[in-house]
Amino acid sequence: MITYWIDLIGTFMFAISGALAAWDKKMYHDIFGVSFTAFVTAIGGGTLRDVILGIHPIVWVKDQSYIIAIALGVLVTVVFRTILLRYKRSLFLFDTIGIGFYTILGVQKSLAFGVNPWAAVIMGMMSAIFGGVIRDTLVNEIPLIFSRQIYATACLAGATVYILLGYTGIDLEVNMILSIILIISIRLFALRKRWSLPYLTKENKW
Amino acid sequence: MITYWIDLIGTFMFAISGALAAWDKKMYHDIFGVSFTAFVTAIGGGTLRDVILGIHPIVWVKDQSYIIAIALGVLVTVVFRTILLRYKRSLFLFDTIGIGFYTILGVQKSLAFGVNPWAAVIMGMMSAIFGGVIRDTLVNEIPLIFSRQIYATACLAGATVYILLGYTGIDLEVNMILSIILIISIRLFALRKRWSLPYLTKENKW
Amino acid sequence: MITYWIDLIGTFMFAISGALAAWDKKMYHDIFGVSFTAFVTAIGGGTLRDVILGIHPIVWVKDQSYIIAIALGVLVTVVFRTILLRYKRSLFLFDTIGIGFYTILGVQKSLAFGVNPWAAVIMGMMSAIFGGVIRDTLVNEIPLIFSRQIYATACLAGATVYILLGYTGIDLEVNMILSIILIISIRLFALRKRWSLPYLTKENKW
Repeated sequence: MITYWIDLIGTFMFAISGALAAWDKKMYHDIFGVSFTAFVTAIGGGTLRDVILGIHPIVWVKDQSYIIAIALGVLVTVVFRTILLRYKRSLFLFDTIGIGFYTILGVQKSLAFGVNPWAAVIMGMMSAIFGGVIRDTLVNEIPLIFSRQIYATACLAGATVYILLGYTGIDLEVNMILSIILIISIRLFALRKRWSLPYLTKENKW
Repeated sequence: MITYWIDLIGTFMFAISGALAAWDKKMYHDIFGVSFTAFVTAIGGGTLRDVILGIHPIVWVKDQSYIIAIALGVLVTVVFRTILLRYKRSLFLFDTIGIGFYTILGVQKSLAFGVNPWAAVIMGMMSAIFGGVIRDTLVNEIPLIFSRQIYATACLAGATVYILLGYTGIDLEVNMILSIILIISIRLFALRKRWSLPYLTKENKW
Repeated sequence: MITYWIDLIGTFMFAISGALAAWDKKMYHDIFGVSFTAFVTAIGGGTLRDVILGIHPIVWVKDQSYIIAIALGVLVTVVFRTILLRYKRSLFLFDTIGIGFYTILGVQKSLAFGVNPWAAVIMGMMSAIFGGVIRDTLVNEIPLIFSRQIYATACLAGATVYILLGYTGIDLEVNMILSIILIISIRLFALRKRWSLPYLTKENKW
């Protein structure tokens, strides 16, 4: 139940992030462009995960709450965009919390479907970030995960810790919370300290 | 039965539209480039719909008539391209009729698989336009649905009307025909009157 | 069994080709960028094939050997990149052998799932080349199959011969070997003789 509401709130947050990104580009400035970008941002990651795992029906085609959550996200963006843009920093926080949850939910769902642990880590990361990759591609920007690759790596780290802690017999809820906090912390510290991944050769620091 | 033939003729028409688009670009000017573009244009929308809905086997992998229809479309384009290009306006008409049918077929198929009404509207539109999106992306143009977004919106409007009329208990065939005519009319009028969607802010009329 | 090992070795080879391509681009020069590109290059074609055919679970989500093979490919690339780049020509040979095998494995798998022969030819080609298409798109180059379309056409030719020979009742292993050799030969001769497909109009030789 709590998972269901987290999922809906995450969908709503991702829709806002997609709608805001579309808004910034004049090309996508009418109601269709904004809604379309919000929609694929919100459902992209989960749909890819479920199609690869062969989980049907995909949640948003069965349960209309997801589409209502996206519509609300678009409405909120259109009405409150000036305020939203002023609090961009808090938005990043919400986005980061959402991605933390999505990663661990994706790992859980994958493991429940008999996926091997390595693939579960990858599926967790993909379900969390793929919506953002589509969003950035649609509005013609280099996907954030390539320019700030530490963000995707934070998801991989959190997912790995979640699986490793799982072998210790730790309480499931405690494990979830610890792993999510790890993902959020890495991302926030990376932003603050301008961390990035080590480059593989010295001459290519750019 | 009639639906099957409409589907095949639609596949043939979409293949022609893909092959012609590839032809216009020198980069795709050999027989592989033209065939490849025709193929993905023709099957893209329906394949995405069936993969998301989890409908297997997908029609074109089961029934070879679809691939024969695409091959015929490529052949017709290669042989009659001069004539086809002269009657570009009629081609747009055929494309519009095809999209009208595909939208409503997509909605029907989605509803039959237990999809919620909101998602069925989106799936109907996606199955109709996604082939064209792939076509435009492959030949390196901005997808038409973003520059002339009224076209995709016409599909959403027709699909919505089809579902709303469905609740009134209207005869299925009458409902189909009315909804398809609505889609075609909006698109043709939009072309004629240079309609577009309202922009969301005044300063961004461009 | 032998098929399983060929599949793993092919995954390893494709991962190297993806990692090397990412390496060439500074943008993808940290460990995440190189691994990500290697991963999607290695699993892209097979995943697309299985998703379209509705085959679940997809091999790499079930069997972790595939992900280990990819990790090894990345490791080998990072450690031996200077040597690998010196023997680029041999790499092309390995890539070509891999693509030959993948094409015929793709055709076999498709036929086993009741796919019609025409679609099986297309699925065979797609499963062999799609990983490379994603690789080239990610590192921002025009996919090789469009600039040297004879490569994809070689796959189509081999797949077609495999299916036609199948009707003659020829021994399965002999048929596989003959078809794979055909694909490899066309690609190697095309490279050597700078073969390309006939252009469809004279004025567009470019």
